[in-house]
Amino acid sequence: MIKTFFRSDIDNMETRYRAHFVNSLSGFKSANLVGSIDQQGIENLAVVSSVVHLGANPPLMGMVMRPHTVRRDTLENIKATKVYTLNHIGVDFVEQAHQSSASYQAEENEFDKVGLDSEYLSDFIAPFVQQSAIKLGMALVEIVPIKHNGTVLIIGEIVQAHVAANAIQSDGFVSLSSKGIVAINGLDAYVTQQQEKRFPYAKP
Amino acid sequence: MIKTFFRSDIDNMETRYRAHFVNSLSGFKSANLVGSIDQQGIENLAVVSSVVHLGANPPLMGMVMRPHTVRRDTLENIKATKVYTLNHIGVDFVEQAHQSSASYQAEENEFDKVGLDSEYLSDFIAPFVQQSAIKLGMALVEIVPIKHNGTVLIIGEIVQAHVAANAIQSDGFVSLSSKGIVAINGLDAYVTQQQEKRFPYAKP
Repeated sequence: MIKTFFRSDIDNMETRYRAHFVNSLSGFKSANLVGSIDQQGIENLAVVSSVVHLGANPPLMGMVMRPHTVRRDTLENIKATKVYTLNHIGVDFVEQAHQSSASYQAEENEFDKVGLDSEYLSDFIAPFVQQSAIKLGMALVEIVPIKHNGTVLIIGEIVQAHVAANAIQSDGFVSLSSKGIVAINGLDAYVTQQQEKRFPYAKP
Repeated sequence: MIKTFFRSDIDNMETRYRAHFVNSLSGFKSANLVGSIDQQGIENLAVVSSVVHLGANPPLMGMVMRPHTVRRDTLENIKATKVYTLNHIGVDFVEQAHQSSASYQAEENEFDKVGLDSEYLSDFIAPFVQQSAIKLGMALVEIVPIKHNGTVLIIGEIVQAHVAANAIQSDGFVSLSSKGIVAINGLDAYVTQQQEKRFPYAKP
């Protein structure tokens, strides 16, 4: 049975119910940890489910963030240092990853608090997550304000990619399932992958 | 073993290899069919993997599109009619859904060509995909140009949602796995879900 919700039904939902409901409706979301560092050297780690592919040449990705919702902000670090990392979440450390969405105090190191290890690779300033099988060093390109709801689209380009070699297939495809990378559904569900089927380039 | 790619390595990849590689690096992507209609009443259907949640109140979603890459354009229809639909792709019609990425002629109806059925619900002008378990009627809010690579972010708000009732849990969460909704990895891999684990709201 299909249930129909009109806009007024959604607007009238209790706040938390609506957050769960609408967050589920975009489809599966990418599961990444954003690593950043402030100018005093304090590392920051946050789960994001809003990373989106923008283009391959140049290699660009977008990430939606809501400013002013947390005290010590990944966004502030990115603005200050112009760099950040994206680290794919694996099923073996999903609990620690989710814990990084808690609101820690400004002076606390979130890597330590949640039990993940930071690592510094190839002279990149921002910290990577050691446990992750796919890690990207990103340089800030532009922050695009989304006027309609006060969020921002952070656009970054890949400057270095650290990828588990056995996940890369002969045509460049990187199998996320083969490394146990999870997807996110809604606000709090992490989903593992069963079966991956590739299709040929579609012709009429 | 982790393999490192610097920006110059990515820039020097063969075009198709780079497309597969970079498209895989954002993580799992949502799998939707966009339904639209032109002012002559010709229906259009296209796979998109770039739908991203922007906010729950108001219920907003973004979708990245590359203009000028196809002759007859979903984007042109959205600009003309100000509405479109997003229909989640289920594992039972993934082959037909993928086929809609082929370049059909302007006068051809892509629903017919790929073997999916359009349906019109609750006086909404754009066509929904009958086979889909989760269908959203969207109204255009804004088209944000992404200067750096010539793509656009199409922002829309949900005006109606048609959702399989048994996928909706008591707190508003909609289980995509329970309806066989797939995720996309890279350009051409469709992935089904094995296990879904929800976590409580994280506290320090």
